[in-house]
Amino acid sequence: MNDPAKGSPSDKLWGGRFAEQAAASLEDFTTSIHYDSRLFHHDIMGSKAHARMLVRQQLITAEEGEAILQGLDDIEADIEAGRFRFRPELEDIHMNIEKALTDRIGEAGARLHTARSRNDQINLDMRLYLRDECETLDGLLTALQRRLAALARKHLGTIMPGYTHLQRAQPVLLAHHLLAYATMFGRDRGRLADCKKRINVLPLGAAAIAGTGLPIDRDQVARDLGFPEVSVNSMDTVADRDFVLETLFCLNLVQLHLSRLSEELVLWSTKEFAFIRIGDRYCTGSSLMPQKKNPDIPELVRGKSGRVTGALVSLLMTMKGLPLSYNRDMQEDKEPLFDALDTVKASLAITCEMLGDTVFDAEKMRAATEGGFMTATDLADYLVKKNLPFRQAHGVAGRIVARCQELGCELSELPLAEMQAVSPLIGPDIGSSLSIEGSVNSRISAGGTARARVEEALAALEQQLGIHS
Amino acid sequence: MNDPAKGSPSDKLWGGRFAEQAAASLEDFTTSIHYDSRLFHHDIMGSKAHARMLVRQQLITAEEGEAILQGLDDIEADIEAGRFRFRPELEDIHMNIEKALTDRIGEAGARLHTARSRNDQINLDMRLYLRDECETLDGLLTALQRRLAALARKHLGTIMPGYTHLQRAQPVLLAHHLLAYATMFGRDRGRLADCKKRINVLPLGAAAIAGTGLPIDRDQVARDLGFPEVSVNSMDTVADRDFVLETLFCLNLVQLHLSRLSEELVLWSTKEFAFIRIGDRYCTGSSLMPQKKNPDIPELVRGKSGRVTGALVSLLMTMKGLPLSYNRDMQEDKEPLFDALDTVKASLAITCEMLGDTVFDAEKMRAATEGGFMTATDLADYLVKKNLPFRQAHGVAGRIVARCQELGCELSELPLAEMQAVSPLIGPDIGSSLSIEGSVNSRISAGGTARARVEEALAALEQQLGIHS
Amino acid sequence: MNDPAKGSPSDKLWGGRFAEQAAASLEDFTTSIHYDSRLFHHDIMGSKAHARMLVRQQLITAEEGEAILQGLDDIEADIEAGRFRFRPELEDIHMNIEKALTDRIGEAGARLHTARSRNDQINLDMRLYLRDECETLDGLLTALQRRLAALARKHLGTIMPGYTHLQRAQPVLLAHHLLAYATMFGRDRGRLADCKKRINVLPLGAAAIAGTGLPIDRDQVARDLGFPEVSVNSMDTVADRDFVLETLFCLNLVQLHLSRLSEELVLWSTKEFAFIRIGDRYCTGSSLMPQKKNPDIPELVRGKSGRVTGALVSLLMTMKGLPLSYNRDMQEDKEPLFDALDTVKASLAITCEMLGDTVFDAEKMRAATEGGFMTATDLADYLVKKNLPFRQAHGVAGRIVARCQELGCELSELPLAEMQAVSPLIGPDIGSSLSIEGSVNSRISAGGTARARVEEALAALEQQLGIHS
Amino acid sequence: MNDPAKGSPSDKLWGGRFAEQAAASLEDFTTSIHYDSRLFHHDIMGSKAHARMLVRQQLITAEEGEAILQGLDDIEADIEAGRFRFRPELEDIHMNIEKALTDRIGEAGARLHTARSRNDQINLDMRLYLRDECETLDGLLTALQRRLAALARKHLGTIMPGYTHLQRAQPVLLAHHLLAYATMFGRDRGRLADCKKRINVLPLGAAAIAGTGLPIDRDQVARDLGFPEVSVNSMDTVADRDFVLETLFCLNLVQLHLSRLSEELVLWSTKEFAFIRIGDRYCTGSSLMPQKKNPDIPELVRGKSGRVTGALVSLLMTMKGLPLSYNRDMQEDKEPLFDALDTVKASLAITCEMLGDTVFDAEKMRAATEGGFMTATDLADYLVKKNLPFRQAHGVAGRIVARCQELGCELSELPLAEMQAVSPLIGPDIGSSLSIEGSVNSRISAGGTARARVEEALAALEQQLGIHS
Repeated sequence: MNDPAKGSPSDKLWGGRFAEQAAASLEDFTTSIHYDSRLFHHDIMGSKAHARMLVRQQLITAEEGEAILQGLDDIEADIEAGRFRFRPELEDIHMNIEKALTDRIGEAGARLHTARSRNDQINLDMRLYLRDECETLDGLLTALQRRLAALARKHLGTIMPGYTHLQRAQPVLLAHHLLAYATMFGRDRGRLADCKKRINVLPLGAAAIAGTGLPIDRDQVARDLGFPEVSVNSMDTVADRDFVLETLFCLNLVQLHLSRLSEELVLWSTKEFAFIRIGDRYCTGSSLMPQKKNPDIPELVRGKSGRVTGALVSLLMTMKGLPLSYNRDMQEDKEPLFDALDTVKASLAITCEMLGDTVFDAEKMRAATEGGFMTATDLADYLVKKNLPFRQAHGVAGRIVARCQELGCELSELPLAEMQAVSPLIGPDIGSSLSIEGSVNSRISAGGTARARVEEALAALEQQLGIHS
Repeated sequence: MNDPAKGSPSDKLWGGRFAEQAAASLEDFTTSIHYDSRLFHHDIMGSKAHARMLVRQQLITAEEGEAILQGLDDIEADIEAGRFRFRPELEDIHMNIEKALTDRIGEAGARLHTARSRNDQINLDMRLYLRDECETLDGLLTALQRRLAALARKHLGTIMPGYTHLQRAQPVLLAHHLLAYATMFGRDRGRLADCKKRINVLPLGAAAIAGTGLPIDRDQVARDLGFPEVSVNSMDTVADRDFVLETLFCLNLVQLHLSRLSEELVLWSTKEFAFIRIGDRYCTGSSLMPQKKNPDIPELVRGKSGRVTGALVSLLMTMKGLPLSYNRDMQEDKEPLFDALDTVKASLAITCEMLGDTVFDAEKMRAATEGGFMTATDLADYLVKKNLPFRQAHGVAGRIVARCQELGCELSELPLAEMQAVSPLIGPDIGSSLSIEGSVNSRISAGGTARARVEEALAALEQQLGIHS
Repeated sequence: MNDPAKGSPSDKLWGGRFAEQAAASLEDFTTSIHYDSRLFHHDIMGSKAHARMLVRQQLITAEEGEAILQGLDDIEADIEAGRFRFRPELEDIHMNIEKALTDRIGEAGARLHTARSRNDQINLDMRLYLRDECETLDGLLTALQRRLAALARKHLGTIMPGYTHLQRAQPVLLAHHLLAYATMFGRDRGRLADCKKRINVLPLGAAAIAGTGLPIDRDQVARDLGFPEVSVNSMDTVADRDFVLETLFCLNLVQLHLSRLSEELVLWSTKEFAFIRIGDRYCTGSSLMPQKKNPDIPELVRGKSGRVTGALVSLLMTMKGLPLSYNRDMQEDKEPLFDALDTVKASLAITCEMLGDTVFDAEKMRAATEGGFMTATDLADYLVKKNLPFRQAHGVAGRIVARCQELGCELSELPLAEMQAVSPLIGPDIGSSLSIEGSVNSRISAGGTARARVEEALAALEQQLGIHS
Repeated sequence: MNDPAKGSPSDKLWGGRFAEQAAASLEDFTTSIHYDSRLFHHDIMGSKAHARMLVRQQLITAEEGEAILQGLDDIEADIEAGRFRFRPELEDIHMNIEKALTDRIGEAGARLHTARSRNDQINLDMRLYLRDECETLDGLLTALQRRLAALARKHLGTIMPGYTHLQRAQPVLLAHHLLAYATMFGRDRGRLADCKKRINVLPLGAAAIAGTGLPIDRDQVARDLGFPEVSVNSMDTVADRDFVLETLFCLNLVQLHLSRLSEELVLWSTKEFAFIRIGDRYCTGSSLMPQKKNPDIPELVRGKSGRVTGALVSLLMTMKGLPLSYNRDMQEDKEPLFDALDTVKASLAITCEMLGDTVFDAEKMRAATEGGFMTATDLADYLVKKNLPFRQAHGVAGRIVARCQELGCELSELPLAEMQAVSPLIGPDIGSSLSIEGSVNSRISAGGTARARVEEALAALEQQLGIHS
């Protein structure tokens, strides 16, 4: 048979039918323990629930069950304490733990894999892990919403230009602008919650592909692990990575929202906008230029959106055209997922922290609303109220803007007579319509930027977040 | 001023402040009417609701409202009849319709755009359109599930190899295999339903960016158009394309599932597998090789998964790093969305149709289960039932497989004595464990491939689909 | 046989072995004539060369050859004149033309497809087409380089802030900034030229997959069509889309460069930067806000970079994991390619045109160099020249900047005594080092922004472009 | 000032102007030393060349230069020996090495960064690194070509089905099939060589953005480091990542080619095709199913194509819309690049190794050519030689295939009379045209599969690779 001295194929827990030992290069290329060891806690949690079920179903004895549970607890403690040596030649987290268990408790360990395959086991680990990660993400998103709410509360009176096409469009409240992001992150939370419903389905029991003939009880395992549902088709179960893809997509939208916020923070940090000053502690300098103070964090957060999209593309392409059921290609789901999770969590945390050390320059913002004829829409609306059809009112206001440009003045500076020359409908009461504050506070439609509306929206958000303002 | 003979800037409905006419190349480059004309029905639907609200809020008179509604109906009829000329220089569907309306009904038409911007209007059109498309997709997914259920019902007794790594793994029912896909498409329906919740929010009233000072009633418009919610932040509203991205993602998973099914149909159509024959009507030949009959449809469906992913990537990248609120970049959302929708709908429909003209060769499938030691797991499970720890049972079964390979026989052909030489636990009762039918029907765990389980799953699906079998 | 009245399978030129007529839905789903008709000119060019070779090799007679050439010329004229009716049921450009040819000239037409397959024919068409498109792109890139060179020549004296991290870093010449883009587009031209080498290989003669047994002469066809090389492996030839992917990648970099330029044009058009004014003819207004003038073109060009990347991803994913040789999935190469080509060509053309109607505000740019301590590096370099190690010089300059911030002054305004308090090495000669003009013109290293260097670089570019300044 | 006990901002080499110490979270988020330490060798190589130039230009003394060179050599030795402690708070490889150098040799170390910025330094490191990686890749591609050539040589006589649409199309030589891949990998080598031309440009001297006022000599550094060119625009230089993107694209095509080869190896390993047996040493088993032997390596190689495309998308998206010149987003170029390089190199190496332990089953392949009417094209060509127009010949052959299907026989088994009933042109000499060997060897067109042609192609490849067969 095999020469035990030089190692035998049966080193591998699946080696029975193999005549030759695995090549070292094969082990290097196929091992996943360097990244799936991150799943140890959830792998052990799943194995314990499986063992409890095996006992209840009399597939193993109570004593064996006890030994397994104790052994797994010991292994978990060792891993947490950094005392556990992961062995690449044992391929993955499952085999590393099963082998260690058997080494420690003997034959009972060799019974743990009864009625189970790594195909359903890894699916279980990933679902347990992602369920927790969804919680973590929700917490980080909530914290960022709280930060934005606090900033909005603090800057309730601050007026700034609202932009479309990066051109000054209409004056808005800074609070309204910040709450736009809080709204996006709230949507992200809802999306993740929906995603979690599809994560939260027990796959264990699908076994390799076909289910098992041993008398297992999947419902018990589901109750034990808190899964409200049990997967309904064993082939789909082991072939499925939809829940990973959906998580990746949710992460993409979070990072996309962060990229937009970051773009604005970069813009606002410029000398040209000068709307904010990010604290020294959250900026870096230049190795060459002594005066530089750079907004590295929002730049990196913005840049990392590429990485999160790359992760999604990676797995979509990997999954394309794979026949049923499990294929080894699917091992490639973990690294992009883990990287995307780490990236998004770190981006959320640092953005939240940095915003706490960012000063908003209300004066600069207010001053910036003075240029750009930002109340031209108000002028048009004034004319609508005088019963001029909107499209004509728009034309009138446009011509008045053109006149201001010729004269080099702002709308509020144009003499009434000049305005009346364009439209006799304009009267002396036009003044208040053209003021910035008047403009902002006139936008009282639901969801609008009038202070009353923004206060309502903020109060609603605070209530939802449990903030007592 | 402008020379009316050579056209003036005010040709554009927004031309008031412009001193020069738009360049023809600008019009060519920025116009969207060649693709957004597809939204005409939903644009008109939205405008009608807006007009009704304007009347109720006394922003226009009842007569003006009537004229608008009638004018819009006429325009819609003309478009449907192919009598409407879309003008590229009017940029988009909104301006084409508004201009035509004003040309037809005069001043009342010029009042329609009161308290509205194209920024919130296009968002409304897209949401109305996507709400309908979600319904269409749900219908196509359901039809495909029905087809799969019917095939499963028809082939309830057909056994085939189940594959992992494209290696024969364990025998399964063809019905089980088909229902794996029905399960995927069911998950797609759930995902789309969740997406639709986030589509189903009224954006109108956000106006350009800040809301409006005119006394509109967004709740009324929401009720009129059947939106359960009104958007809460005007800046987020006009800057938001999350719902487009989420739809694109849902489409990606549908096409990904189709790509996997298609890969299998291509494989099964090969001479080597020969599990199916797609009808002549759904195949094409070769311009050079007279004998060829090619499975073009599944090949194209599989290939088109790249296109749907490309559409998602396209918009993710376009949206990356855009500052608030609306930017013209966002116009690039439509073509990838429309293309992805058309692609997925066509792929679903043709796959469903083609499966109706596909013959499954039950004999070839059953025959393919004979090679490959597909009941080795059953042998291991047999030993587990004899109280051998699973891991050892796996080793024993592996060695027996190796012995079969040496002797060139299948598991069921190996003499009992040979088996017992490897493990004395094996008794004469081993036979039934090694039969293909026995194996399939033993997999009685929930979601497993045993006929009883598959019948249950099929019945549950049929009930859900309203099929009376 | 087939009922001629209701159409027979042999309507298809490959229908011999088929018992049933193709489904209409199959035709709809698989036809490509609506987009590959764009290849008509190159398809005919290739067919004519093929026919000439068939004559020379005596596979058809000279008379047949003549008839074919004449027939193809007639068809080409008809297509160009809009007189040709493309028939979707004939699938693609090849079959449409072959059928029309046979209808016109009879049996000789039926001989054209001798020793040829659509597999090598489409590959030929695409290569001929892309060869021409590479020329077109090179022309557009050159035109844009010329525009940038002209602007650089015009603004040779204009100083502006150079940015890193979007923070003002060091003063540079506007001409230097513009030439950075000319350099990028020059690199794009080189990349396309390399790509074209790999496009420029004759595929015809690979036939369906294996080559042909008929006595063709591939070298003659290559000479006829101007291909310097003949493909060396028939299976690779019909399976290969590398040249399409490489073209798509080249297009990606062009659009990426345009997206960066566009981002700057959008920024520079803001009220905050106000470095440029794009002409009215290349901007649009708002349907709601009368004052708006938006930089739509650069926004769209920037946004379209997503689309071009989507096209590349699309085809990479489509090609992934396809076994040899031709698979129908590969038909999906054309639409993304055509769309990307159209997008990039239009973006190049309109950017070039718009830059011709863009005013650069030299005063605003120069003024912007005054804030931000942009000569701090010069201060450090001054100290290096006084033999202070650079890293210490950097620290000194940093502390002096900090002192300026405390005092609210710029570097050039800080009293000498204050500087000397930080470093006694600083003498009265420091002044010129701190001037903006001095700083710019000191950067005389190769590739630097000193006017002398920029003039050299510009002259070199002009010479390369054949411009006589 | 700063409390030296708790560390001061000037811990950072750029800290002069900063009033507060960097936040720990900032350091965690922005540090790159955990991945850019891989560049240590090239960073030191570049610094040494820079130092030599500084000496020659009298910017530092010869003694200082000596100290720097010796110090850098020592540091390199320490890193190679694992004795160097990388410090995350020093951000990146540049600062880690500069700080260590100054700690070791004092003031001279503080002079190294004279006339240099990290902006041009990182660009230099990456180019030096990629230049070497291109060599490594070329070596791996060559090794794989050699393996394929050796296999082709060994199997020169083996006939197998050539496939289009995964349907048997025409018989080909296995050698021809293998050489198709050798051709692809050869094209990859050419593409990488072109890419390397654009990598091979000296960026150093661009400094932060504008060049430098210190009297450096870029040409000398270029000669020292073997760069044939010096970059021509300092702003473009520090803003440019084209060469990274182009490398990523080249890697994409390599992995795409590997994915296609892998797909075939997976298919050929199935029981259904059974064309190859991959050695036990390069396969793994199942944790549950004792009989399984899975082709994990080609599955993973195929799956990893998603990852390499993800890396490309990641950086394309990151670079989109970045204004000039350097932005911190660009730090995100390294991880996708390194990952893609590692992935492709490992995939090339393991594929090459595994192919050396793969057995091709010539009998199974030959047998598979018997089914599927694979000589139908030969039959059509036979008729063409009898002067029947090809299109009619195709129809005749198609009808004969249909007749075979009715009778359940292969082409070579159909009685002559049956053939003649379809076309009287067919004579007794048809036999040899219908034999598989005859078919293969008839394909004598250039690049065709006739043995003579394949031998020529193989010989040409062997010569190119320096193999003496």
